[in-house]
Amino acid sequence: MVDESKYKVLFRVNSPADVKTLSINDLRTLCVEIREYMVDVISQIGGHFGGGLGTVELTVALHKVFDTPNDLIVWDTGHQAYPHKIITGRRDQLKTIRRLNGISGFLKRTESEYDAFGAGHASTSISAALGMAVARDIQKTNKKVIAVIGDGAMTGGMAYEAMNNSGLIKSNLIVVLNDNNMSIAPNVWQISNYFSEMIAHPDYNRLKGAIWDLTGKLDNFGDRIRRVTARVESGIKSMITPGMLFEALGFRYFGPVNGHSLEQLIKIFEQIKNLKGPILVHTTSEKGKGYKPAENHAQRLHAATPFDKVTGESIKKSGGSPAYTTIFGNALVEIAKQNPKVIGITAAMPDGTGLDIFQAEMPERYFDVGIAEEHAVTFAAGMATQGIIPVVAIYSTFLQRAFDQMIHDVALQKLHVVFVLDRAGLVGADGPTHHGSFDLTYLRLIPHMVIMAPKDEAELRDMLFTAVNYMNGPIAIRYPRGSVLGVPLQDGFTQIQIGKAERLTNGQDVALLAVGKMVEYSKKASEKLLAEGIHCEIINMRFIKPLDVDILNDVITRFEKIVTLEESTIVGGFGTGVLEYLAERNLKNDVLRIGLPDKFVDHGTQEELHKQLDIDPDGIVEKIKKFLNTKINRGVVA
Amino acid sequence: MVDESKYKVLFRVNSPADVKTLSINDLRTLCVEIREYMVDVISQIGGHFGGGLGTVELTVALHKVFDTPNDLIVWDTGHQAYPHKIITGRRDQLKTIRRLNGISGFLKRTESEYDAFGAGHASTSISAALGMAVARDIQKTNKKVIAVIGDGAMTGGMAYEAMNNSGLIKSNLIVVLNDNNMSIAPNVWQISNYFSEMIAHPDYNRLKGAIWDLTGKLDNFGDRIRRVTARVESGIKSMITPGMLFEALGFRYFGPVNGHSLEQLIKIFEQIKNLKGPILVHTTSEKGKGYKPAENHAQRLHAATPFDKVTGESIKKSGGSPAYTTIFGNALVEIAKQNPKVIGITAAMPDGTGLDIFQAEMPERYFDVGIAEEHAVTFAAGMATQGIIPVVAIYSTFLQRAFDQMIHDVALQKLHVVFVLDRAGLVGADGPTHHGSFDLTYLRLIPHMVIMAPKDEAELRDMLFTAVNYMNGPIAIRYPRGSVLGVPLQDGFTQIQIGKAERLTNGQDVALLAVGKMVEYSKKASEKLLAEGIHCEIINMRFIKPLDVDILNDVITRFEKIVTLEESTIVGGFGTGVLEYLAERNLKNDVLRIGLPDKFVDHGTQEELHKQLDIDPDGIVEKIKKFLNTKINRGVVA
Repeated sequence: MVDESKYKVLFRVNSPADVKTLSINDLRTLCVEIREYMVDVISQIGGHFGGGLGTVELTVALHKVFDTPNDLIVWDTGHQAYPHKIITGRRDQLKTIRRLNGISGFLKRTESEYDAFGAGHASTSISAALGMAVARDIQKTNKKVIAVIGDGAMTGGMAYEAMNNSGLIKSNLIVVLNDNNMSIAPNVWQISNYFSEMIAHPDYNRLKGAIWDLTGKLDNFGDRIRRVTARVESGIKSMITPGMLFEALGFRYFGPVNGHSLEQLIKIFEQIKNLKGPILVHTTSEKGKGYKPAENHAQRLHAATPFDKVTGESIKKSGGSPAYTTIFGNALVEIAKQNPKVIGITAAMPDGTGLDIFQAEMPERYFDVGIAEEHAVTFAAGMATQGIIPVVAIYSTFLQRAFDQMIHDVALQKLHVVFVLDRAGLVGADGPTHHGSFDLTYLRLIPHMVIMAPKDEAELRDMLFTAVNYMNGPIAIRYPRGSVLGVPLQDGFTQIQIGKAERLTNGQDVALLAVGKMVEYSKKASEKLLAEGIHCEIINMRFIKPLDVDILNDVITRFEKIVTLEESTIVGGFGTGVLEYLAERNLKNDVLRIGLPDKFVDHGTQEELHKQLDIDPDGIVEKIKKFLNTKINRGVVA
Repeated sequence: MVDESKYKVLFRVNSPADVKTLSINDLRTLCVEIREYMVDVISQIGGHFGGGLGTVELTVALHKVFDTPNDLIVWDTGHQAYPHKIITGRRDQLKTIRRLNGISGFLKRTESEYDAFGAGHASTSISAALGMAVARDIQKTNKKVIAVIGDGAMTGGMAYEAMNNSGLIKSNLIVVLNDNNMSIAPNVWQISNYFSEMIAHPDYNRLKGAIWDLTGKLDNFGDRIRRVTARVESGIKSMITPGMLFEALGFRYFGPVNGHSLEQLIKIFEQIKNLKGPILVHTTSEKGKGYKPAENHAQRLHAATPFDKVTGESIKKSGGSPAYTTIFGNALVEIAKQNPKVIGITAAMPDGTGLDIFQAEMPERYFDVGIAEEHAVTFAAGMATQGIIPVVAIYSTFLQRAFDQMIHDVALQKLHVVFVLDRAGLVGADGPTHHGSFDLTYLRLIPHMVIMAPKDEAELRDMLFTAVNYMNGPIAIRYPRGSVLGVPLQDGFTQIQIGKAERLTNGQDVALLAVGKMVEYSKKASEKLLAEGIHCEIINMRFIKPLDVDILNDVITRFEKIVTLEESTIVGGFGTGVLEYLAERNLKNDVLRIGLPDKFVDHGTQEELHKQLDIDPDGIVEKIKKFLNTKINRGVVA
């Protein structure tokens, strides 16, 4: 797969110890070869790409200067850590990255002693690193702790909380701000702008004018004073920009350093590694560095499917169905055109959520708040108090960040906020930090929350329309990652009655109550079961909360055996809601709940994982057959 | 209760419209009288106190200058809003504050059109206000939006996320930073320190020295230049401190303003009310202002029980039991003395969590991270990677803020972090934002999480010991607000086997499976039921996760009817876990689940609320009697 012979240095590097022995020239070659190797491998198998190309020199410099794994490097988020994986003994496994039983696309403590902390959700690195630094102080050892965080992750409130706390604790801690685009720039520039304004302030200028006036009368001396004054001014200016924000939080600031200059990076790390207190090193880098197609299309090649090495074009099967994401984005545009109250909010994921489509059509009603889910939700709540209808599009796993805000800022006040959860259920290659495994439970426990899951893209459209027009409080729609089923889409929208399910087939042996993606799986399983003479009645429940009690009562009466199907944790989710309903009425139907197990699920394709967990159609068939053969095992009365 | 005749102005103010008509002298009198009235009323009934005394002038000035309720004031957290309540038509209801059916101790939209946004959890105001400002822009109206936030709440990451986003959006928005103590001071001062260091920098001093040298040779002109140079330096210094942090985030900074000078406040608000873009007004105030005992003991009188008006001493029944909080604090000290790995973390609640006791004994192992629950949990996770045992003490309701961090930073990595959730269940007077209503569900859905609830203070001690010595991942203990039962405490600690319940009584009619406070209620209910000839078997389950399957299997076999009791939401909680266990084995016992309803519960005393919800011992008795008479209503087979 990879031609090893063309690499001069890379295949001699089996651990950071090897990096330390290399000359600066060999290190430079190593950087070139890491990029080439990444392009070679990732073009074939796909994976996060741009971030890692931007951190090659940084990674090599860190492992060159610091004594890993004794010194601890905490990578924020983690998709930029491919070069780190390559030089910490996982070079040959790179071809398995994000694949079933292969290495993770993120950091993972159980994968390598060099992965000091797992990540996946942004903005956690400084908190974790500060914890390690304090532990080190308590244990009186000397290890260095280095957090590497991108400018995007710096917009998350957690990073600020941790910086603030670091400034207070004053433990020895190095934060590398890997600034590879413009996410943080507006802030930094605002400091700069501020200083410019100050320099332009009448008071300041009056004083400066006075100096000028005075010195103008002084010939030789005057010129020298003028020059000195100008140097003081520019000196202050350069010292204030852009480190002030970090200094304000208690960090000593160094930079900006060219993040693609190995020499400069090594030099700065050598200089600061033994300094006391919290240190911030600001490096500037370019996402996709060294690979033209990625440099030119940073967003597209952030996380790539397999692509052509030369052009960077994705190698796609033609004629694939669009993703749910696209259907949502288009539907929101249609709805918002009819309803001027509708706005869209994303937390730094315009492409991932499909809000980029909305942004293109109505930029003035589109809000990207940064990696700031907490703020996103309460910002929406504030809008809702004024009669605006905010549609908050956040992945299922990331919305966990705003759990409290959903409860107290939205639901308690019964505000009409529409939550759109993409990537609900297993997401595949990104693995446990990105699976949307918990939402049906964490949403269901929130009073007043209405929760829907569409069986297909047509229903997603209608649910979005329904949610926007539901005026009675918070309402959520969750749907899976990936392609839609390809059902025909009608023009316009149909309002769905809140809490109304849909009977898809009639049967007499067993009732399948399914939500979301599991409706389609139920149909497939049902066909196979029919071949064995088992007749399933399939209900597309549509609503996880409130449940359709009419259809439930009917099913309960007609079927002894009921199967619930959901792609969310089996603990406290939709199926459990059915159990609760039965228990409240003291009804005794047999219920088989099919869902995600009470454990973290690793990475792999969605299909592989479904199969592994026996929640693919075949697995469902087996479970149902076993269930139908189960003897009822009544609790014996004492 | 209150002698109205001694008030000259207060009882003429029935709404902010009345405030607007008052002369400055009358406004000053109003401020004095608001304080006096608060002391009069709150000394008799208890309530949040110090915060409100600190915001009297601010409140009056805001309502004087702004056109409320058309203009929107968003109070952060909300316990400082008593003066706001007093002058917005709720003066006479102040005596009902935090009481059953009385007004809320926080802001509440359904209570008054002047309460623009409800709060209770900190750091939300800027997000909500920005949402309102954007809504206003979309709707093209002219209302002003003002967020009032304390310095403590400014340590929360959400506030930073919102400031950052405000700077980007540039909507007209006024943030009043009510700085009443030192929470934010270290940051502000660090900016100041930074500038001082810069001034002391060799480069800068060389330049300055050069000016001095030159000008020293110039007699009269030289002196003038030196004076001018000094003025430039101090001018820059004063412009940079302390507004720079906010300017860096895109706000125009005004202040600091004396928050107890009505004239200054009115003047600054008049000056800035029509300015464009995000504006920050920094006011400095004193918690407890104008009432000596509160000024001297800001912490103690933050939230007071009824107290003596003259001395400020709390009027307590003598001989009351200590709170669970105290038992926890003392136990942690004992355990930490034996185990040097144990440290304690609080998110700005040292007194509330009992960690103040730990702080006093071992300050070097105590960490107050500010109002920053997200950071607190990941900070703990970082420590745990190094073998430190962090005990994170956060109220049940506030831990919702760190839901995602518990899942991904702690549980996914199976790190040994001990979560201690005080205020689990209904907390009483603080109401829905502070009830710990959801924890058993939101903890239970997390893989690897062990969840315990002690029946009394002796068990709390043993559970804490057990949790610290459990080395296999995250573990949580939750217990209620309020006094302990008064059981004898043994010396030292007993390790409890993970997942082992405790049978308290034998019975034959019904099994009561109870957790936490509900064990005691079960005992009381059981005594009453015994008087009617009903014999209950009581199991103290201790563990919500993992469940004790041995005792469950025994109970399931011996009892047809099982009651589960918990003080947490009935959706997805402990009782639901029992239903899931039964369903997985297709067992058909009748189960009555007693817990908190699927709705937000208002404020009142804990006892009143328990009674209202029929989960006090009498309510439990009635529910069980009805349950025992229920005919089993089996689902009919088709």
